[in-house]
Amino acid sequence: MTSRLLVVGSVALDSVKTPFGEERDALGGSATYFSVAASYFTDVSLVAVVGEDFPEEYVKFLKSRGIDLLGLSIEKGETFRWAGCYGYDLNSRDTIETRLNVFENFRPVIPEKLRSSKYVFLANIDPDLQRNVLDQVEKPEFVACDTMNFWIEGKKPSLLETISRVDSIILNDSECRELAQEPNLIRAARIVSEMGPKIVIVKKGEHGALMFALDKCFSAPAFPCETVFDPTGAGDSFAGGFMGHLARTADISPENMRRAIIYGTVMASFCVEDFSVRGISSLTKRQIEDRFKTLREVSHFELP
Amino acid sequence: MTSRLLVVGSVALDSVKTPFGEERDALGGSATYFSVAASYFTDVSLVAVVGEDFPEEYVKFLKSRGIDLLGLSIEKGETFRWAGCYGYDLNSRDTIETRLNVFENFRPVIPEKLRSSKYVFLANIDPDLQRNVLDQVEKPEFVACDTMNFWIEGKKPSLLETISRVDSIILNDSECRELAQEPNLIRAARIVSEMGPKIVIVKKGEHGALMFALDKCFSAPAFPCETVFDPTGAGDSFAGGFMGHLARTADISPENMRRAIIYGTVMASFCVEDFSVRGISSLTKRQIEDRFKTLREVSHFELP
Repeated sequence: MTSRLLVVGSVALDSVKTPFGEERDALGGSATYFSVAASYFTDVSLVAVVGEDFPEEYVKFLKSRGIDLLGLSIEKGETFRWAGCYGYDLNSRDTIETRLNVFENFRPVIPEKLRSSKYVFLANIDPDLQRNVLDQVEKPEFVACDTMNFWIEGKKPSLLETISRVDSIILNDSECRELAQEPNLIRAARIVSEMGPKIVIVKKGEHGALMFALDKCFSAPAFPCETVFDPTGAGDSFAGGFMGHLARTADISPENMRRAIIYGTVMASFCVEDFSVRGISSLTKRQIEDRFKTLREVSHFELP
Repeated sequence: MTSRLLVVGSVALDSVKTPFGEERDALGGSATYFSVAASYFTDVSLVAVVGEDFPEEYVKFLKSRGIDLLGLSIEKGETFRWAGCYGYDLNSRDTIETRLNVFENFRPVIPEKLRSSKYVFLANIDPDLQRNVLDQVEKPEFVACDTMNFWIEGKKPSLLETISRVDSIILNDSECRELAQEPNLIRAARIVSEMGPKIVIVKKGEHGALMFALDKCFSAPAFPCETVFDPTGAGDSFAGGFMGHLARTADISPENMRRAIIYGTVMASFCVEDFSVRGISSLTKRQIEDRFKTLREVSHFELP
């Protein structure tokens, strides 16, 4: 039984420079990466805003992935633009420019027929808006949210209120430490879990991911990528694979949650192999399953 | 069939300060941590040098762990002393002082009866001396070495000569990238392997470890430690568990090598829970096996 997956977040035009190349006004944004990655697993509905300048070819591409764009509103003005530059080892990123444009006044409205979505992902947006989305949906089975240091530092009380209402939070290791104000990552994750979410997922980039669920820890390996071209969107692709697998199977058991983390890892690994969403734009089921199996081989060992 | 394990490296008196406490002239040194960790698995012989000031109680402790001290020479002068200080999150370390003392003129002499040792670990010492040890041993089954940025930067040609003669190199992620001059860790490990060692093991601290063997990658989780007091010696304890298990089983098959990495991870996890070697000074077989099982649970997932 497959369940509908709803994502609310940003759709953007990204200009990215890495040691391997440069792109201008490429398709980007948290909700974009998320929904493209999740589209391999289940029916996805995207709620976001773009400007009148948003290229028709990008709309066509999202539709070609079967993504429901009923909730994508086109407003007068320009699309959210982000420009960033990665250093030599791709681990450091400088934001060159952020122009919110139409995203500045984004007030997500969930279309009537999407309010019953069973799986909901609140991508990285203002925690006030994340809660506003929660007020509009009816009894979802499983809600996960993302956030970033900007909200942890600038809007913590609101963020804590949002976090107390979700089943899972997906964040990176530095954000987890900052939110918990605790340098030990295991203790930090426990502190975050005590803020509300039963499931805390910590993304560690090239070091894989950790999941903390009911006092049990799961450590997922990273996919051994030799060709990393552009890390932009890896975290949202991870979340898309994770939530996509959960919604596809409508199974939130601990064992299936672990498999979902592995699918997230697979989608992130494809994402970083090319600029923009190209790495995840035309995958086969076989390619995805092959990487799942590789991750199993990479992490498997027998008891003595 | 258990094989004898020989380690050549440093025995030191460490003064360490962490946010959780301070120790002066505590038992330390790479060969110390290595041999104490390995002593739970097999017969270990330690070749090192100390000064006349080396406390009798430390000698007694090493003997109590069954470590063969035939190769521990006591020279006129003071023991090697190292002083270091860890920052708030324990990930950054400043060396306050290094006094080589008797270690400065260390020229390892392998006692006759140890020259037939089948398993040999060359802890972090001058690569010239590491090769000198290799010249003294007779046909070992498996030789592994460690190194550090100091030798990568200051004595690369000699280090490369040593590396070309070992079966395995165990180093941390930044050292691996520096040695290979390649930021992508997977590619860096491949480059290091092409320098000679069939098995490249990359320690990543709180992020676990990677092993590259014959083009296969193994990703080992870190043990989820909530109480890290002092990371000093974690890498050598890891190497001790790894080599100890290999020597105990006299089995260097890929599957057993993976288990050895997990035993290394277990020993490192005990090491960091207390100052000096206290965390690994009196463990039971049960405690070690329990953590092995926990690491299996932590990393296990089923195919869909």
